[in-house]
Amino acid sequence: MGNTFGHLLRLTTFGESHGAGIGLVLDGCPARLPLTEEEIQVELDRRRPGQSALVTPRQEADRARILAGVFEGNTLGSPIHVFVANQDQRSRDYSDLKDLYRPSHADFTYEKKYGIRDHRGGGRASARETIARVAAGVVARKVLATAGGIEIVAYVRQVHAVRAAAIDVSVVHRDQVEANAVRCPDPEAAARMIAVIEEARDQRDSVGGIIEFVARGVPVGLGEPVFSKLDAELGRALLSIPATKGVEFGEGFGAVALFGSEHNDAFRKDATGAVITETNRSGGIQGGISNGQPIVGRVAFKPTATIGKSQKTVDRRGQEVEMAARGRHDPCVLPRAVPIVEAMIALTLADHLLLQRARG
Amino acid sequence: MGNTFGHLLRLTTFGESHGAGIGLVLDGCPARLPLTEEEIQVELDRRRPGQSALVTPRQEADRARILAGVFEGNTLGSPIHVFVANQDQRSRDYSDLKDLYRPSHADFTYEKKYGIRDHRGGGRASARETIARVAAGVVARKVLATAGGIEIVAYVRQVHAVRAAAIDVSVVHRDQVEANAVRCPDPEAAARMIAVIEEARDQRDSVGGIIEFVARGVPVGLGEPVFSKLDAELGRALLSIPATKGVEFGEGFGAVALFGSEHNDAFRKDATGAVITETNRSGGIQGGISNGQPIVGRVAFKPTATIGKSQKTVDRRGQEVEMAARGRHDPCVLPRAVPIVEAMIALTLADHLLLQRARG
Amino acid sequence: MGNTFGHLLRLTTFGESHGAGIGLVLDGCPARLPLTEEEIQVELDRRRPGQSALVTPRQEADRARILAGVFEGNTLGSPIHVFVANQDQRSRDYSDLKDLYRPSHADFTYEKKYGIRDHRGGGRASARETIARVAAGVVARKVLATAGGIEIVAYVRQVHAVRAAAIDVSVVHRDQVEANAVRCPDPEAAARMIAVIEEARDQRDSVGGIIEFVARGVPVGLGEPVFSKLDAELGRALLSIPATKGVEFGEGFGAVALFGSEHNDAFRKDATGAVITETNRSGGIQGGISNGQPIVGRVAFKPTATIGKSQKTVDRRGQEVEMAARGRHDPCVLPRAVPIVEAMIALTLADHLLLQRARG
Amino acid sequence: MGNTFGHLLRLTTFGESHGAGIGLVLDGCPARLPLTEEEIQVELDRRRPGQSALVTPRQEADRARILAGVFEGNTLGSPIHVFVANQDQRSRDYSDLKDLYRPSHADFTYEKKYGIRDHRGGGRASARETIARVAAGVVARKVLATAGGIEIVAYVRQVHAVRAAAIDVSVVHRDQVEANAVRCPDPEAAARMIAVIEEARDQRDSVGGIIEFVARGVPVGLGEPVFSKLDAELGRALLSIPATKGVEFGEGFGAVALFGSEHNDAFRKDATGAVITETNRSGGIQGGISNGQPIVGRVAFKPTATIGKSQKTVDRRGQEVEMAARGRHDPCVLPRAVPIVEAMIALTLADHLLLQRARG
Repeated sequence: MGNTFGHLLRLTTFGESHGAGIGLVLDGCPARLPLTEEEIQVELDRRRPGQSALVTPRQEADRARILAGVFEGNTLGSPIHVFVANQDQRSRDYSDLKDLYRPSHADFTYEKKYGIRDHRGGGRASARETIARVAAGVVARKVLATAGGIEIVAYVRQVHAVRAAAIDVSVVHRDQVEANAVRCPDPEAAARMIAVIEEARDQRDSVGGIIEFVARGVPVGLGEPVFSKLDAELGRALLSIPATKGVEFGEGFGAVALFGSEHNDAFRKDATGAVITETNRSGGIQGGISNGQPIVGRVAFKPTATIGKSQKTVDRRGQEVEMAARGRHDPCVLPRAVPIVEAMIALTLADHLLLQRARG
Repeated sequence: MGNTFGHLLRLTTFGESHGAGIGLVLDGCPARLPLTEEEIQVELDRRRPGQSALVTPRQEADRARILAGVFEGNTLGSPIHVFVANQDQRSRDYSDLKDLYRPSHADFTYEKKYGIRDHRGGGRASARETIARVAAGVVARKVLATAGGIEIVAYVRQVHAVRAAAIDVSVVHRDQVEANAVRCPDPEAAARMIAVIEEARDQRDSVGGIIEFVARGVPVGLGEPVFSKLDAELGRALLSIPATKGVEFGEGFGAVALFGSEHNDAFRKDATGAVITETNRSGGIQGGISNGQPIVGRVAFKPTATIGKSQKTVDRRGQEVEMAARGRHDPCVLPRAVPIVEAMIALTLADHLLLQRARG
Repeated sequence: MGNTFGHLLRLTTFGESHGAGIGLVLDGCPARLPLTEEEIQVELDRRRPGQSALVTPRQEADRARILAGVFEGNTLGSPIHVFVANQDQRSRDYSDLKDLYRPSHADFTYEKKYGIRDHRGGGRASARETIARVAAGVVARKVLATAGGIEIVAYVRQVHAVRAAAIDVSVVHRDQVEANAVRCPDPEAAARMIAVIEEARDQRDSVGGIIEFVARGVPVGLGEPVFSKLDAELGRALLSIPATKGVEFGEGFGAVALFGSEHNDAFRKDATGAVITETNRSGGIQGGISNGQPIVGRVAFKPTATIGKSQKTVDRRGQEVEMAARGRHDPCVLPRAVPIVEAMIALTLADHLLLQRARG
Repeated sequence: MGNTFGHLLRLTTFGESHGAGIGLVLDGCPARLPLTEEEIQVELDRRRPGQSALVTPRQEADRARILAGVFEGNTLGSPIHVFVANQDQRSRDYSDLKDLYRPSHADFTYEKKYGIRDHRGGGRASARETIARVAAGVVARKVLATAGGIEIVAYVRQVHAVRAAAIDVSVVHRDQVEANAVRCPDPEAAARMIAVIEEARDQRDSVGGIIEFVARGVPVGLGEPVFSKLDAELGRALLSIPATKGVEFGEGFGAVALFGSEHNDAFRKDATGAVITETNRSGGIQGGISNGQPIVGRVAFKPTATIGKSQKTVDRRGQEVEMAARGRHDPCVLPRAVPIVEAMIALTLADHLLLQRARG
């Protein structure tokens, strides 16, 4: 249980970090959408290790192969299967961790839940699992493209204490995000974020941060009250990403400081006569349904649990021990998490687009 | 779609705010649990309007009747049906709103999504819908009771700018929460919160806030990676509550300011030899699975959208108009939202308890 | 678990035979369909006891009330709730059965599964549960009507050894079915069926039979391979009706006697140029997907388990005893099962219509 | 949609007949069950082409590889992924069929449903899809083994007009089934069935038949009324197998000829004091719940649609043409369908075993 996501566009993922590979099955994708391995690869390359000095130097090629559901370059309507073989699996990096419970990792909880764990690099709890999400997100964007110009852009808004200036969500573009290694569209803040991450790395420590996202062009009417409201579903999608600790929409936790008269988004007509809101403090969702304004929110990521500093923990026999991670790890997961956040949003929106279409 | 929640313990809710009533069907509840209407009533009374000067003065008796699934005081294993008839339905309060889109309400999005709306008080988007959640939460607690002493306590942590002192989540008790009308266990902060709410009411405005929650005694092992992680599922549950704008676990957004070496929860043994964590910055969930520590988090609520102050909006014909709500509304939803938050947590945990039991 | 049916059009039913009533929640019904209690009542009256000398003389008014999801005569898109209060509940008829396991009833299995049972007339295992299916079927037909002239007609094809002549499924009409109490469109066979049922009744015994069904006008393309093929889903729907023991499509079990060259349905063009099949031995479904031909099949019903004749059984203490039912029971369930079969087909087809629409 | 089966033990399958391969993901399998590729291979070999003169001479090695979810020979509790690469893909056999709609195949319906089809051998509609079911069935049997000695045996009961003598379902064993190429435990009937199949093959025609199955040792209490009754779920499972046209339980369609007094299964005590039934006309399921008696039923398979005889059909441009299949096909699918039937039963029972366990 738990490895399938979505109502009509159903993503099932599988694979351990040091097993044969990571894969996905995406059922419910409409037929006749063009899809190539190259398109998937572009996004996987945004997620993969080794892409910059800020992230883990592990070299993982992460080549996506489409093994089912696509025929002569088009989706068939049958389940799409993508597989990414594992390659650079230095299981030996983990052999000395095999009996330890790494602090704030899933070693302990997996072992207690399942009575067994794959100690090689986290097994299923590894962030390698998100490869499948990113690959599926590419297909989800194809589904969204059938509804016109829906654009999803995520970016790093904050790293540790460094917060970027307010980003104009109505225009922020992937080019600005990809312009630097930390994926922050504010170049000045980006430079400082990079410095913070490098210092944390040099200290054998780690830092967290906040990813902000916007989805523009989402049609009015997506979301299924009362339990599958669009924000509830996006929230679940985002909180299922490893290392996330919180999610908010629109003004989010900041809404608490406003009076209703300040927070409400007044309706008005635009030049075309369409009903729009003057402000967008709701973040594009009202009553759990998209209102046509940009969907905006933020996700909090904790500092990476794996650090080179010495820490106290216990082993499987209950002995208290000291440990320090020796593997190659990310001092900050945020730059690589940007495409994951985008993928989960794309999957959720595409699923709800199909749900709404079913209404006819 | 969207009116069912849960995998094995499945709650379906229905009912418009000014229709015949609000109801629920709860399928998957184990048999032979004692259940009475009185137990449900206790929680409904915590949620109902008119309970204090802080909330809407509408008088809604909200009497729960169990109409199926219980025989001679015990659950049968068949679907439990609870119905709460609507009574104080002053639809006339809404007749002048029938063609308006109230700002930051769901009027506009419902009408665009469904092509029709029940304008009498919000219809399905009304907070009356949460009656069903609270009633079902009582049954969920019965399910949790079969696993020993799981305790769920929620309380108001912040109203507008007034933030309670840190609450000791290991001991906070419902009695402290119920000790004042605002449901904040810090009596000094409670007094100030009440003042803030009363002032907002007098200004015909509204305020939001933060509800904090703790679930103690949750067994290790609940949560279904990778998409139905316990935090992801709790997040969805809580973000499906009306007026919520964010949710966080453990340190939440505050984790961003910490280094990994500060945030990680070191494992150690307790006096009984059990593995515990020295700190609980993770909020009781690691890798999406409960680790036996208290599950802790917070939910942000926006200020109530309905305010007596005049606001700009448009009507169904696209005319720009001014409006001011005349009905009886809550200047702050948080005191009444406390039992709703607890109910959604209970439903989520009970569902995952059953899922984990299936593993045998 | 188990009380919800459907993917997008989701029916949840509840209620014990001698509890407060029988009800349903139907989620996912598109908005703006006209719906009245009277329309539902028409179908309930076809199902209800006491309608003829062939069925149980119990008088159950079974008045349907729509309590949610409909506003000013139209569906809202929110969950539709229909409730039918129980009235003629002679629980005393069952008091002497309270410790017995009636042969071929669900008394024994319910008690072993749930550890408890509602002994008053079968509780949830009673055929009264099907009231909810019939009511929901009326709504499902409204959904089907949005796709043009889909017609579903079921009728009694066989009672005990009396088999009607071949019925022309391309034209058989409800008027012919309703023309006699046994609901068989072959009047001559109907007369003999009635005689057989009356004789079984007089002998305090019971008989079974076969209901045949046809759905005409179903668009090409409904059904979701590979596990939710249209025949698989219809099969599940029909086998979930009490007292069913088998289901078949097209030639069904009779296909076994044919060679492939005899059984295959050759394709050809009709006068309009559309691709049709020359024969319809497949029963309108190929590869699990509707092919535009009439969907045809049959359901086998066992003889009613409740009989007035003396039978051997054991009681809850394991004592072997003799028993004879004293209540008012149907000597043959088939006449009343016709609307139930139609309802389950309508629900399945409407669900798959929505699923196919989601493809856009 | 449609490629996932099960509630808690969730099988998702994928792969086209002439794509890269056929695969499955099985989520929800409990951890710590031993599982090897060899065990899966044993069952795949029972299903594979080329195993006898009765089936298609295509040589497909169908080697199963476990690529996820198993670590050091044991299941991890994470999704199990098995992949079977396609090898003997003579797509050229199909190139001349690329624009034809083969009679009683899914070519026409797939193309109309999805607007595209993989014409190479049926794509997703090919019986190769059942490889995944058979492989998953091996895992399901492991789950069942945790509940003691549940045995599932299926066998060919009838081919065309040749019907085996009554088989004693309380003892029939796989050895008897595997004793001949047609998989009928009645050796005398088997010989005649073989002759019938060989003659059909020589005539370039095909034949259908009936597979009977028994599941012994199933605990009392499996099945989830009212829509997921055990027989309804088994029915769906079996009717999702290609070429099936009907399914029945216990006396099935034969129950129609019996009076209630003849059909009812009287309860009595056995030597150990357990409640059993004197007869088993219900086929081990009462009220949709297993009663501890052997679960017995039958599945009807139509004659193979692909035949070498000339047939009339139309092509994609609507031209009426004659066609005769040239590929290598099964004159009778039943011998190879036996392990598929067993697999679908195992998957269904294992799923319901977990559902019942969740009740605690």
